[in-house]
Amino acid sequence: MERNILLKIEYDGTDFSGWQRQPGRRTVQGTLEEALSKVLGQDIKIEGTSRTDAGVHALGQRAIFKGEFPIPTENIQKAVNNMLAGGMNNKNKLPDINIAGVMVEAPDFHPRFDAKGKHYRYIIENSKTPNIFRRNYRYQINQWLDTDAMREAANQFLGEHDFAAFQSAGGTPRESTVRRIYSVDIYRRENDEIIVDIIGNGFLYNMIRIMVGTLVEVGLGKREPMEVDRILKSLDRSRAGHTAPPQGLYLMDVYYEFPEMEI
Amino acid sequence: MERNILLKIEYDGTDFSGWQRQPGRRTVQGTLEEALSKVLGQDIKIEGTSRTDAGVHALGQRAIFKGEFPIPTENIQKAVNNMLAGGMNNKNKLPDINIAGVMVEAPDFHPRFDAKGKHYRYIIENSKTPNIFRRNYRYQINQWLDTDAMREAANQFLGEHDFAAFQSAGGTPRESTVRRIYSVDIYRRENDEIIVDIIGNGFLYNMIRIMVGTLVEVGLGKREPMEVDRILKSLDRSRAGHTAPPQGLYLMDVYYEFPEMEI
Repeated sequence: MERNILLKIEYDGTDFSGWQRQPGRRTVQGTLEEALSKVLGQDIKIEGTSRTDAGVHALGQRAIFKGEFPIPTENIQKAVNNMLAGGMNNKNKLPDINIAGVMVEAPDFHPRFDAKGKHYRYIIENSKTPNIFRRNYRYQINQWLDTDAMREAANQFLGEHDFAAFQSAGGTPRESTVRRIYSVDIYRRENDEIIVDIIGNGFLYNMIRIMVGTLVEVGLGKREPMEVDRILKSLDRSRAGHTAPPQGLYLMDVYYEFPEMEI
Repeated sequence: MERNILLKIEYDGTDFSGWQRQPGRRTVQGTLEEALSKVLGQDIKIEGTSRTDAGVHALGQRAIFKGEFPIPTENIQKAVNNMLAGGMNNKNKLPDINIAGVMVEAPDFHPRFDAKGKHYRYIIENSKTPNIFRRNYRYQINQWLDTDAMREAANQFLGEHDFAAFQSAGGTPRESTVRRIYSVDIYRRENDEIIVDIIGNGFLYNMIRIMVGTLVEVGLGKREPMEVDRILKSLDRSRAGHTAPPQGLYLMDVYYEFPEMEI
């Protein structure tokens, strides 16, 4: 019987040329398809929820594939993880992809169209001294960021807006640039980290990174918090801030039920 | 006037083929010599305290070089760090080496012969679930480690011993395999991390990694804590445990005064 199998995937984006399969490059999709094809003994193509860029990480990426397979669903996770580990040179080192979960979904389930929301986290290290061990995992900013001002700016992203000003050229063309942001939380964590948690119903190409780049400029005092509203209304990319670098960004989760709202 | 300049160096060992200069390979020594030679306008060769292996990290490596230079000592740190950053593709990402300090030492100072002690830290992640983001920075062990047993075993390393059983073949030949261990501290830290801090007057090739591999086998219950004494006396490498992988090891500091003793 044909199964529609949904994977939950973690990866460290450092050594990948992004999610999407590309000839001659190491990508997350390509690496997973190769491992799945070996484990399942047939050519497997997967479809992911989010085409993360090179250097972007994930803890809750989703991807789906269909077919009739000789092994039980519950064995796929371990078999694929073993296959991924077998490709590593250092047997004492983990691979940079991990299948965190495997589920059978209804035949008509689609991981992207059925997604109700996504949670992205962006992590800034706001410290005077560089931390070279975090260079692939944080956006490091050595000047003090005013998180109150950043929060004031971020509130203007809430709700439904046309985010054309917060989109880079070069992404997959979309019918509409209107998106809904459910929540933006900004807080400090130990070791001078600033966490920016954003939940929305969908995101344009580089949207989170341009939102964060703009918030950083507000936090540095280079922009007024109230500018965000004007930037949104302008629909003009050149009015928004810089694109924050990929290594601070994590796809945390994809929701297939509506995410819990703040009450 | 000739200056004898001592550098304190941090590096993430992940993308280096170790400390020591090797033709056609990216090494810490080679990368630093290239940056220093460009900044100082002459061919610079440095001598380090510790020839760390591929994948091993450092927060307190030391290296020295001599010469007459056109720029003040206090400007060398920034100039070299800028040079190292300039070689990176991603301008928003830190380089994987950082000069943490620069000092002028007496003409007869030698960074290795004058070292009174070194502090190495080994970090184990003792968690049931893998953390792929730490794969280059921790030895990940998913079975519970008994740190009390590890501490009991580690106490037998204290003091002066012939560590021939805790040495890999292939290192620089040394006149003696006798070394003194001043302290071994083993403790748990948040997130299921086990820290092993070792301070000694010097270490043989792979000595810390074989000590930790042996302690891990004790922590897993595969060996008795009291075996360590017999392994030391045997002078036989095959009696000791496995060599723990490089990515958990950090050279924390090199002491030129005697390290403070526990009282």
